Amino acid sequence: MRSASSPAARLNPAVLAIEPSVIRAIAAKKQPGTIDLGLGEPVLLPQQRFIEAAARWAAEHGVKYTVNAGDPALRERIAAHYAYPGMATARNVCMTTGSQEAVYVAIKTLLDPARDELLVVEPAFPAYAKIAQLEGIAHSAVGLREADDYAYDVDAILAGLRPRTRMIVIGSPANPTGSVLREAGARRLAAALLARGGEPIWVLHDEIYRELTYVGDPGYLARYYPYTVVANSLSKSNALTGMRIGWLIAPDVAIDALVKMHTWATSTASAFGQRVAYEIFGEPGALTEQSAWYRVQRELVLAALDASGLQFAPIDGAFYVCVRLPHGGDSLAAAFELVERRGVAAIPGRIFGPTLEGWLRLSWVAPIDDVAEGLRRIAALA
Amino acid sequence: MRSASSPAARLNPAVLAIEPSVIRAIAAKKQPGTIDLGLGEPVLLPQQRFIEAAARWAAEHGVKYTVNAGDPALRERIAAHYAYPGMATARNVCMTTGSQEAVYVAIKTLLDPARDELLVVEPAFPAYAKIAQLEGIAHSAVGLREADDYAYDVDAILAGLRPRTRMIVIGSPANPTGSVLREAGARRLAAALLARGGEPIWVLHDEIYRELTYVGDPGYLARYYPYTVVANSLSKSNALTGMRIGWLIAPDVAIDALVKMHTWATSTASAFGQRVAYEIFGEPGALTEQSAWYRVQRELVLAALDASGLQFAPIDGAFYVCVRLPHGGDSLAAAFELVERRGVAAIPGRIFGPTLEGWLRLSWVAPIDDVAEGLRRIAALA
Repeated sequence: MRSASSPAARLNPAVLAIEPSVIRAIAAKKQPGTIDLGLGEPVLLPQQRFIEAAARWAAEHGVKYTVNAGDPALRERIAAHYAYPGMATARNVCMTTGSQEAVYVAIKTLLDPARDELLVVEPAFPAYAKIAQLEGIAHSAVGLREADDYAYDVDAILAGLRPRTRMIVIGSPANPTGSVLREAGARRLAAALLARGGEPIWVLHDEIYRELTYVGDPGYLARYYPYTVVANSLSKSNALTGMRIGWLIAPDVAIDALVKMHTWATSTASAFGQRVAYEIFGEPGALTEQSAWYRVQRELVLAALDASGLQFAPIDGAFYVCVRLPHGGDSLAAAFELVERRGVAAIPGRIFGPTLEGWLRLSWVAPIDDVAEGLRRIAALA
Repeated sequence: MRSASSPAARLNPAVLAIEPSVIRAIAAKKQPGTIDLGLGEPVLLPQQRFIEAAARWAAEHGVKYTVNAGDPALRERIAAHYAYPGMATARNVCMTTGSQEAVYVAIKTLLDPARDELLVVEPAFPAYAKIAQLEGIAHSAVGLREADDYAYDVDAILAGLRPRTRMIVIGSPANPTGSVLREAGARRLAAALLARGGEPIWVLHDEIYRELTYVGDPGYLARYYPYTVVANSLSKSNALTGMRIGWLIAPDVAIDALVKMHTWATSTASAFGQRVAYEIFGEPGALTEQSAWYRVQRELVLAALDASGLQFAPIDGAFYVCVRLPHGGDSLAAAFELVERRGVAAIPGRIFGPTLEGWLRLSWVAPIDDVAEGLRRIAALA
């Protein structure tokens, strides 16, 4: 039998062209005892009562296919909870395999690779650009500025629009910076996009850190702009990263095509996970029950940051903080130095866009003493 | 605020071009009391002990991300269970959101839309061709013959190869016919493909009905052909359609690219579902525990088929039977006549390829009296 290691087998070049993940390369360098500030998921346990309830439901009903878009009763609860204008019915919601599938399906469905372009607002989660690349969709980037603490700058976003731009993706609260688009900014961005005329530009608002918002005036594009598509999940709010339950909320003009694409990619989201979500959305406060822990931890982290002497961007949302390397410079080299020789895993800012070069992204869900020690070791970088 | 129902919003034409599902259109016509022979999922309940075990595990460990390819311990169990040559290690397995994602990722990753073509062996599950269409990959079809009872015909498959064919997709046991590629056929197909030389042609073997096989000599391509990629899931074997736990098994030359594509589409499969799978693969016999019910039901169905006078294809696998319309002809019209006026939901053969026009696909997991009554009503079609 001929060996399968023959080099003659070919694959899709668009898949091969995607670079391997730096986050994974750094994770692979971790040793026992490494202080892990690279982690992208909560350390809390999920609320077990919802998992038990879903298990009891499964005993009675089995775990069958839902319709492709997901259980209508769950979708109705989600639509009603967010109550976005024009998107407040079950029909406007499609359950997905985490927000990753939600983002994948949205970019793939709403943009035409032959003519459309995606605008990424950086620093940004690398998946947006990678998905565009994979789908042969051109993308450009607008960089938020260090001098502004990486705050959302609506004028800069609008100035970044190009003739072919047909989608802007905004993560708010942002991964990696925690920046939050404010209500005034959301209103102004919506008004400017509506005033443009011509073919509408989609906004993909990635709201995955929504329940972890520490400012009083967050902006939700879907409230003001009818061409918004929202991606979200239970991964961060309810410590259910591994349950893979996310969703899209979209206007009538987009939802059928989104559901169709979702159908061919994954058929349906987990019915078990959907039942967990149904329980969570049925209990007032369950979605934000864990937020209190983050608020307390954030205060401790802010104190440790002040003590470290490091420059950092404000923590307005999520569970990350971006810190500037003491001498700026090559964040990739610094991240490898830290994980290989100083026992700290942190993510180099560069992978979130050139505007964050010279910085590191740290997650702060580890025990506070570990976070503080990690900050000291970063501050000690020569 | 401008209405989101403006027709100016554009979408990806490749997604819009996919026709709506006929299966869904027929399902939408069902009334209370309709005999449902259209169903594509088991009626058995899943083995609750595995769900309970996963819930206990979640209470202790949470439900966190696994690595993108899935839990290494589970992947090792799956690789060892199937023990395909060159694909028998954890590294060769990627857990997916059901076999739908497995098939999607395999077609998308292994074929280059710029130059490769997919060969579908019909009658076939419509997803293969739809996914190719969605990805801009050309596809051709080879039709198995009514005169052969739609048995797999290796010579016909080989004769169907075209210069650009770089993947053959084979569902065995087949949906819709239940046909099973035999061991001799698998060996012969493998030998012929290896003897061709030149760039290898991938075989995607969709094994989702593997545990429901009623012949003694089924053929598994991955045993004989190193460019085989296998898709499977727990959906049918363990009545876990809604758990969305599937996997790909692939040789070293393909697995990294498959995992990469999977990562950007869905990140990881459900960790909860993976734990259920870990329990199932850890208990000898759990994967085939429900097969006995299908074997008994199949005998009852064969008797009802004989009594009906309908012509039918042999039930060598799966839980479907294809029956010929009494007067042949338009299967789409017959299926709508049946569901709208005769209280029977059945799937028109045409949607599985022109070779099955004049036939219907029936699933036989409903109570046997319902199956028999449904067959009588089909036999009574004027």
